[in-house]
Amino acid sequence: MQVHITQGDDVGKAVIVTWVTPSEAGSNKVYYSTVNGTYSDYVEGSVSQYKFYNYTSGFIHHCAINNLEYNTKYYYRLGEGDSAREFWFWTPPEIGPDVPYAFGVIGDLGQTYDSQRTFQHYLEGNGQALLYVGDLSYADRYPFHDNNRWDTWGRFLEPSTAYQPWIWTAGNHELDFIPELGESEPFKPYLNRYPTPYHASNSTSPLWYSVKRASAHIIVLSSYSAFGTYSPQYKWLKGELATVDRNRTPWLIVLMHSPLYNSNEHHYMEGETMRVQFETWFTDAKVDIVFAGHVHAYERTYRISNVAYNIVNGQCTPVRNDSAPVYITVGDGGNSEGLAAEFMDPQPDYSAMREASFGHAMLEIKNRTHAYYSWHRNDDGVAVMADSLWLSNQYWSSQATSTSTFKYLSLRP
Amino acid sequence: MQVHITQGDDVGKAVIVTWVTPSEAGSNKVYYSTVNGTYSDYVEGSVSQYKFYNYTSGFIHHCAINNLEYNTKYYYRLGEGDSAREFWFWTPPEIGPDVPYAFGVIGDLGQTYDSQRTFQHYLEGNGQALLYVGDLSYADRYPFHDNNRWDTWGRFLEPSTAYQPWIWTAGNHELDFIPELGESEPFKPYLNRYPTPYHASNSTSPLWYSVKRASAHIIVLSSYSAFGTYSPQYKWLKGELATVDRNRTPWLIVLMHSPLYNSNEHHYMEGETMRVQFETWFTDAKVDIVFAGHVHAYERTYRISNVAYNIVNGQCTPVRNDSAPVYITVGDGGNSEGLAAEFMDPQPDYSAMREASFGHAMLEIKNRTHAYYSWHRNDDGVAVMADSLWLSNQYWSSQATSTSTFKYLSLRP
Repeated sequence: MQVHITQGDDVGKAVIVTWVTPSEAGSNKVYYSTVNGTYSDYVEGSVSQYKFYNYTSGFIHHCAINNLEYNTKYYYRLGEGDSAREFWFWTPPEIGPDVPYAFGVIGDLGQTYDSQRTFQHYLEGNGQALLYVGDLSYADRYPFHDNNRWDTWGRFLEPSTAYQPWIWTAGNHELDFIPELGESEPFKPYLNRYPTPYHASNSTSPLWYSVKRASAHIIVLSSYSAFGTYSPQYKWLKGELATVDRNRTPWLIVLMHSPLYNSNEHHYMEGETMRVQFETWFTDAKVDIVFAGHVHAYERTYRISNVAYNIVNGQCTPVRNDSAPVYITVGDGGNSEGLAAEFMDPQPDYSAMREASFGHAMLEIKNRTHAYYSWHRNDDGVAVMADSLWLSNQYWSSQATSTSTFKYLSLRP
Repeated sequence: MQVHITQGDDVGKAVIVTWVTPSEAGSNKVYYSTVNGTYSDYVEGSVSQYKFYNYTSGFIHHCAINNLEYNTKYYYRLGEGDSAREFWFWTPPEIGPDVPYAFGVIGDLGQTYDSQRTFQHYLEGNGQALLYVGDLSYADRYPFHDNNRWDTWGRFLEPSTAYQPWIWTAGNHELDFIPELGESEPFKPYLNRYPTPYHASNSTSPLWYSVKRASAHIIVLSSYSAFGTYSPQYKWLKGELATVDRNRTPWLIVLMHSPLYNSNEHHYMEGETMRVQFETWFTDAKVDIVFAGHVHAYERTYRISNVAYNIVNGQCTPVRNDSAPVYITVGDGGNSEGLAAEFMDPQPDYSAMREASFGHAMLEIKNRTHAYYSWHRNDDGVAVMADSLWLSNQYWSSQATSTSTFKYLSLRP
């Protein structure tokens, strides 16, 4: 049934439940309760199908459950009678500056043996919600972008996505743009299958939006939509950054697919077009971390920026900047395209750590000032923490005394 | 009736006729003939209306006339009986490398006294078709983006647009994006009113496309749509540049709204996000000229490029490059926002000529090797040629002997 949930509003008191019924539409109802097995309430959603070349989707149900209590375990049931299935999720704690929360971060997962290892390692951890940085099923690698692969991917992930929200970002493999087959509506399968709560953050597109969860304000951008000056995404991001309240959500995190900094030969400089447009905003806003995928390897930068350039001054080298985000690429979920093993040589000064291994990352927020970040590679059969550091919050560390200025405490072996 | 025509195919043997009937739909037929007053043929088009907040458009008719003869004067009639009106247009000569042709170039026209002067000066010249580089009616400067201003603009231009094709490029004032009024579909009035022959060049959007006309291959891009790697516009442009045949159409011209080079303080560096994405392609393809608007002043660059940058090499200064296009900004049509009078001081080395005056440009192609380019300012009451030069064709001049390599023959006073 490919059950998956995502946050349904901008503060964590709603979820959107999505599931697919292959053969007949069935019920649109989601029964839910705080007591297992006793379902006093239900909400009814919508159902739709889409066609993609020679494929017709199953019946895709979306149902929003609103007005939930914070920090509560909810049970929910889909379907009726013998085909009913039950799941559960925890709502997040109420938003607040010192609320601890553990996010997983995965990108470019696909559905291979490596994907399974990454996913299994994530399941074994303590992640409460997942930040997904694009490239989901890789259905487009199959003839006619065989959309059955979207279905198999949905089933593959259900052991997590039915129980905790995954926050979705669109990647290039979601474009599914093949005009030669009459499919020229970008993101069609993705948009039909993976709803996002974009209205709640005043966005006009499901491809860019924000959610606040626990102590984090998470902004999702679309590398493959327009972001030129005056474009809808540009205007939305400008307004959105102005709404960020670090007293309420100290941790400001941006998700996108194509990284702004990447010293891998694969996709080198593809992020430049967005970097020159938005990097100044990220630095001015003191974004904590920008997570991206796309490059099938791991990389973490120092806090650096390259925002002094004015065409004629020659100042176009990335430099250390305590106001800048850490840029982290985790496009190493494990898809069928394989690892991007060739890095630029020598390692540029802006790059702190890079490795061509599959894996996933964790961001464990402890309070308003500190978070523990780690990257877990698969190569050793079990998840091995191969990069980690304590992050000082960008906003609150600059508020603190000079004796506690930001430091990297790299525990890299 | 706001009659306007645009090229209807990719080779100049078709036109699309658009007109608006305010009160009742009326006929969709266009009668046409090579003999004035005797209409043997007709074609029937479509009619539609659109709503924009509190405005409902008139009945907008689009009708394509196909399979025309080259280099022929056609008369056409719209409407029936007493309300019938008659116009005419010339089809272009058959495509060929030495076919002379005179294009006008206008941007950011609006509908002010200055707009009228620019338009009148263009009408007094010898332009056979017009390249329009975006920002049309400036309706969005009025409360609720008063779409009646789109109608008045259509009437204002009819003395030219009914008789020769205007090739349209979308600018930021075509976005008409006001989600707070429920209007969140970018380019809605523009797309309803100004069709383009995008299917003929295998584009999937009316916002980017190409036409071949006489000896020119003209590529139209959208500054406010997605152009990131893998996006539809990116993929289309990559394929389109591969189709250019300089033996057939020696003159390769790109139109966009937001300039890639601009030393005016207004909109400074807004074009960077597209420059870093496409400049290498333009230089590799030996594009002759990139025309843009957006900045309400005139500027022409030398043949320069800034394509050596690789993040870590510090090479980010524009340098002379004989393979690079000349970048020309003619956002000086004369709209209600006024002139952009402040230029960066000093004038950067890449900038050959700049002046904050209203006006229009002309590109008179003579043969495969030479074209005469000129900019005509309004300030002296009549059109005064304030910048001009002979352009050597990028492709054919590099094929020629070394004694005839490209030179600038600036006739600037």
